[in-house]
Amino acid sequence: MFTHAHTLRVRYAETDRMGYVYYGVYAQYFEVARVEALRSLGMSYKRMEDDGVMLPVHDLNVKYHLPAFYDDALTIHTRIAVKPSVRILFSYEVRNERGDLLTEATTTLVFIDKTTGRPCRAPQALLDLFVPYFG
Amino acid sequence: MFTHAHTLRVRYAETDRMGYVYYGVYAQYFEVARVEALRSLGMSYKRMEDDGVMLPVHDLNVKYHLPAFYDDALTIHTRIAVKPSVRILFSYEVRNERGDLLTEATTTLVFIDKTTGRPCRAPQALLDLFVPYFG
Amino acid sequence: MFTHAHTLRVRYAETDRMGYVYYGVYAQYFEVARVEALRSLGMSYKRMEDDGVMLPVHDLNVKYHLPAFYDDALTIHTRIAVKPSVRILFSYEVRNERGDLLTEATTTLVFIDKTTGRPCRAPQALLDLFVPYFG
Amino acid sequence: MFTHAHTLRVRYAETDRMGYVYYGVYAQYFEVARVEALRSLGMSYKRMEDDGVMLPVHDLNVKYHLPAFYDDALTIHTRIAVKPSVRILFSYEVRNERGDLLTEATTTLVFIDKTTGRPCRAPQALLDLFVPYFG
Repeated sequence: MFTHAHTLRVRYAETDRMGYVYYGVYAQYFEVARVEALRSLGMSYKRMEDDGVMLPVHDLNVKYHLPAFYDDALTIHTRIAVKPSVRILFSYEVRNERGDLLTEATTTLVFIDKTTGRPCRAPQALLDLFVPYFG
Repeated sequence: MFTHAHTLRVRYAETDRMGYVYYGVYAQYFEVARVEALRSLGMSYKRMEDDGVMLPVHDLNVKYHLPAFYDDALTIHTRIAVKPSVRILFSYEVRNERGDLLTEATTTLVFIDKTTGRPCRAPQALLDLFVPYFG
Repeated sequence: MFTHAHTLRVRYAETDRMGYVYYGVYAQYFEVARVEALRSLGMSYKRMEDDGVMLPVHDLNVKYHLPAFYDDALTIHTRIAVKPSVRILFSYEVRNERGDLLTEATTTLVFIDKTTGRPCRAPQALLDLFVPYFG
Repeated sequence: MFTHAHTLRVRYAETDRMGYVYYGVYAQYFEVARVEALRSLGMSYKRMEDDGVMLPVHDLNVKYHLPAFYDDALTIHTRIAVKPSVRILFSYEVRNERGDLLTEATTTLVFIDKTTGRPCRAPQALLDLFVPYFG
C-alpha cells in the first residue's frame, strides 16, 4: 500500500453562496493530490503524458460528510491500495485542520496510449516505482 | 418517475489540455440539469434556499464512458425515480449531439434547515409538485 | 459596427461566499458571448481553430459596477467596433434582468498561426463576414 | 511600497485545449497572491470579512504576454505601491520557473461595510500594518 498527504488552502473562488467549498471543486483537489502523490514517488504526470500515455478518469465517487470553508487548510490523504495495471485506483480522505473527516472519495484512472487511443499497461518506469509497496 | 432534458454547450474554459471536458466540470452540468429539472416543475431552487432550506450534495458518483469536446452541445437527461423525502436522488445521462452516452451519474442531496443546520423533510410545496409522478 | 446579445444563467458554482458571481467567472461569460457573436455571423470558432488559427486573449479589462447573483439571467452585449486585422477587439456590457449595468469589459485577441506560433492576419472567410459591418 | 511573492503550481483543471492556462484562471491566482500578501503582513482576509468588512474587486486589468502550461510552478509577485484608503490597489507579475514574464495585472478592491453595503475606510488594524511601508 502506498500513501501520501498533501495540504492545500481553499480559495475564495472555490466557495459558493452557502459559504461551502462547491462540491465539484473536490475533483480538482483529488487531481492535485494524486499528481503530488506520484511526484513524491519520483514520477511526473506531465512527463508521462508528454511521453504519450494519458490517464483520463474513468469513475469518481465522492461522499460529502462535512463542509469545507474559505481559507481552510485541507489535507488530502491519498492511498493506492492495489498495484496499478491498465488502471490505477486512488482513494482519498479530505480533512481540515482539526482533523475532521470532510470528504471520502475514490477515482479509477485508465492508462491510454495517445497514438492508438486504446487502453494500455502502465509504463514500466511507473510500475517499477511501486515495487517497494506491492512487491 | 420524473424526467427532464436540458442542453448546454461546452465552454472553452471547461476543456483541458487533453482536449476533453475536465472531469470535475460535470458536477456543474449536473447542478444546472437538476435546477432546470426543478424549474420545469414550477419550483425555484433559489427561492427554496432564500426561504431557509438548503440542499447540499451528500454523494456524487460518475462514470465517464466517452469524452466531451469543446463546443459540443450536450444534453443532460435527469431522472428522479424515487419520491423525495429528507433526501432527493437524481440520476443523469450526458449525451452528445450524435446521441453517444458520454457520462452517467447520480447525486444524493439532503434537505437542511438553514436555522438549525439539521436535515429536514422536503418543503411541502415541493412534495406537492411530485404528486403527479409518484402518487 | 457589429453587435450581438447573449443571455445565460448564473450557476451555483459561479457564486462565492459573498453571494456574488466570482470576479474571475466573467472571463468565461465573455468567452461564451464572443463565441456566440461569431456564431451568429456564421463563423465557428472551433472550426477556425481546427483549421490552424488560434485566437488567444492578449488583454482583458473589466470594471465591476454591481454584483450578479445566483440564478440571475444575465445578458452580455458584445460589440466589435473596429474591423479585425491581426487582432480583434471585443467590448462587453453585462446586464441583469432589470437592465442594470453590472460589468463593462474589453478583450483584445490575437490571431496566431498554429504551425508557426506567430501572429497572422484574420482568416479571409472571417474578414468577409465583417464586410457588411465595416465596408 | 510593499511587495510579496507567492508560488503555486498549475492544475490540470486550469489548462484548456490549447494547452495554455485559461485566461480567466489568472483572476484566481491574483486572489491567492493578494490574500497571501496580506497574510505575510499578519492580516487574515477571512477574519476581516468575518468582522464585517468585505473587499470586492472593482476593476481588473490583465496583459497576457506568454502562456503558462500545465504543472508550471508560477511565482506571482504582488506589489502595493499606494497606501490603502477606501480602496486598495494591487499590481501583479506572473513569472514561470525560467523567470519569463507571462502576465502583468492590476486590481482595485474597495472596502465595503457589510451592514450598510457602502464603501468604508480600511480597518485601522490593516492600516497600521502598512505604516512601516508608507509612513
